[in-house]
Amino acid sequence: MEKERGSGRILRPAITVDAGASRRQFLRMAGGGAALAATASGFAAEPLPVAESARVLGKPVAADPYGQPARFEANVIRRQSPGLTRTNESSIAFAPLQNLFGIITPNGLHFERDHNGRPEIDPATHRLAIHGLVARPKLYSMDDVLRLPSVSRIHFIECGANTGMEWGNAAVPTVQFTHGMLSCAEYTGVPLSTLLDDVGVDAKRARFVLAEGADGSALTRTIPLSMALDDVLVVYGQNGEMLRPENGYPLRLVVPGVQGVSSVKWLRRIEVGDQPWHTREETLHYSDLMPDGKSRQFTWIQEAKSVITSPSGGMTLLDKGGYYEITGLAWSGRGRIKRVDVSTDGGRSWGTATLQSPVERKALTRFRADWVWDGAPALLQSRCIDDTGYVQPLLRQLREVRGTRSIYHNNAIQTWQVLANGEVRNVQV
Amino acid sequence: MEKERGSGRILRPAITVDAGASRRQFLRMAGGGAALAATASGFAAEPLPVAESARVLGKPVAADPYGQPARFEANVIRRQSPGLTRTNESSIAFAPLQNLFGIITPNGLHFERDHNGRPEIDPATHRLAIHGLVARPKLYSMDDVLRLPSVSRIHFIECGANTGMEWGNAAVPTVQFTHGMLSCAEYTGVPLSTLLDDVGVDAKRARFVLAEGADGSALTRTIPLSMALDDVLVVYGQNGEMLRPENGYPLRLVVPGVQGVSSVKWLRRIEVGDQPWHTREETLHYSDLMPDGKSRQFTWIQEAKSVITSPSGGMTLLDKGGYYEITGLAWSGRGRIKRVDVSTDGGRSWGTATLQSPVERKALTRFRADWVWDGAPALLQSRCIDDTGYVQPLLRQLREVRGTRSIYHNNAIQTWQVLANGEVRNVQV
Repeated sequence: MEKERGSGRILRPAITVDAGASRRQFLRMAGGGAALAATASGFAAEPLPVAESARVLGKPVAADPYGQPARFEANVIRRQSPGLTRTNESSIAFAPLQNLFGIITPNGLHFERDHNGRPEIDPATHRLAIHGLVARPKLYSMDDVLRLPSVSRIHFIECGANTGMEWGNAAVPTVQFTHGMLSCAEYTGVPLSTLLDDVGVDAKRARFVLAEGADGSALTRTIPLSMALDDVLVVYGQNGEMLRPENGYPLRLVVPGVQGVSSVKWLRRIEVGDQPWHTREETLHYSDLMPDGKSRQFTWIQEAKSVITSPSGGMTLLDKGGYYEITGLAWSGRGRIKRVDVSTDGGRSWGTATLQSPVERKALTRFRADWVWDGAPALLQSRCIDDTGYVQPLLRQLREVRGTRSIYHNNAIQTWQVLANGEVRNVQV
Repeated sequence: MEKERGSGRILRPAITVDAGASRRQFLRMAGGGAALAATASGFAAEPLPVAESARVLGKPVAADPYGQPARFEANVIRRQSPGLTRTNESSIAFAPLQNLFGIITPNGLHFERDHNGRPEIDPATHRLAIHGLVARPKLYSMDDVLRLPSVSRIHFIECGANTGMEWGNAAVPTVQFTHGMLSCAEYTGVPLSTLLDDVGVDAKRARFVLAEGADGSALTRTIPLSMALDDVLVVYGQNGEMLRPENGYPLRLVVPGVQGVSSVKWLRRIEVGDQPWHTREETLHYSDLMPDGKSRQFTWIQEAKSVITSPSGGMTLLDKGGYYEITGLAWSGRGRIKRVDVSTDGGRSWGTATLQSPVERKALTRFRADWVWDGAPALLQSRCIDDTGYVQPLLRQLREVRGTRSIYHNNAIQTWQVLANGEVRNVQV
């Protein structure tokens, strides 16, 4: 490695990865350190040789009217966690957070959680019913919905069970599987309040709404009316285009800041009522089992949480010491991220990370911190604070209240251990 | 159409479209008014019948590790303008602005402009050279670049020739072809200033940099050093994932606010010099032919511009009168959009549109305005003002200075005429 280095900010290639855990696909493609060393051969000859790619005519612009990723990125995909679910239809495909940049999750990589598989719905025949305690029950076609005044907002969606495996121990090796039931997109749709206004909600009696999906699980969730009238959207657009089939095409609810299951996909029915429905997905599931055997129900909000996505579990820091950019994501179901702290010594000391703008309400926020590794073992952590003043807790603080048998709502500080040989792994401290 | 309507905001389905011009795919799928009328059959029977999609097991979550649009959206694609270019390799694929929501262009629909086709580049062998008036010329591998401190920002990219056909007359029928050389994404990369700092720019002599692509056209563009040190990015990430091949994979320049050709794709070389290079793509092309036969050169900036994307050319308003949402995009190469005005009478009177947040610098801004059409012929226009105070000009104001033979930098107010029968067409007033 003789490459000349002029600035302390420019450093030697440093991270390689295990299959399925790469931050960036190149690292594996390039064969790690060996191939990288070849880049150090210097730069003496001018002019530069003509690039091979410049010797041939490229593909025409009509090659793919709808574009696809480069074939070199074929390993950057959603993945199932082996053995986590008994079927592939009531299952989860995790987003590859270690490969992602910025805050927008590209639609092809948005995590998927289905309860009875992904239905195919023809938008020409799809209808949304709104009924119950309303003056004028109605059936809306997609065209009806698309005619209404719309809004676009950037929001995260996180499954309530995200990071659930960590309640017991450091169960899974990579951030894709610890935190990958998390994505963020610019959603476009109609405020639910507009639709409720149209049907004429019975203001004296109505307290809750029920949302139901058109999939085989007929997934249903109760939502407080106050929340429904606040910032809930009936969504058809995701990152500029129509929703993808796995994310609810052609219509879904987005309940900002609330566990993902409430953002009912393939939305077909909204019922207005005076009390919660206590359906299967809010009693048997998506309730929080406490140490005394009782369950907390209707724990909607995803509290403030953050995670370092690079370096993260499964990666290897190739260079012993030197500069690394620590980067990750922070979010809060209650509002904006105000600050993210980063520690490299397991929480004994903290520095403040840089937040990438825009910092939106109930959206992912990208943070970054510079780190010069001294080559000794390290414990990487991030801790976020939202604009309510809430501080992301330690895992042991959560366990003191909720034990270790929970599944949902684990928003604890995540620790990645860097070993002296550069390997990074999931640990609990 | 007997559907009950309770609120003035909720209106009858109203827009249908020509092939290739749909705002939203449903409109064609649903067969226009006939199918929509079927939705008006009312909502008397409860409970709702079980949805067909709920009677079957859906696809497993592993069905597509990298997701794709619904098959019903197959018509929402990039398109070439028939006859515009002589080859498909030096050509343009326009983004379907009439189909897009919000400000993010999904990567599959980002417009494509190639000068010698789209090369395929292996990131493992790709190198970026930085040389010229520098202390330490260097070759960077992709791993080298990926190790550097990164930033993410939302920016538009607009080809300098966007809307170029309109210099002469209202030449093309839809907003995809009038304004579709325009897209917006969250880009992630390294500030060019970081790389220039690493190689040690000769501060006394350096005034310009040259960027060169690795495609067969060896596309080259001069960029002032002051601009290069300001907000220019060497980019590898687009909307969270690696660049797509057609957008410069694995590395491109993004020169915010400047005509797209300067955001050199497949970036392989940056040379630092003391004067402009006057290459082919900044002399023969991408210069502005004035009425006196001389050309303006190095007209970098894309001045403030806006366009209504719905209703827009090729659509038909099905209902004679009633509510329509007017929506579109505004952007400025100089900074933020401050205000957008909308007129429905060809500019005699104006109302202020709502701007969707976030409103970012040198990024698309989504605007919306309510419109109750009285059924008479109308002329729809939008006019934006950026935070420098610059007001988007009329076409005749541009022509007074630059004549009608220009190709580039047409940022005039666009007019869509709504006929009494509801048809919308491209006109010049």
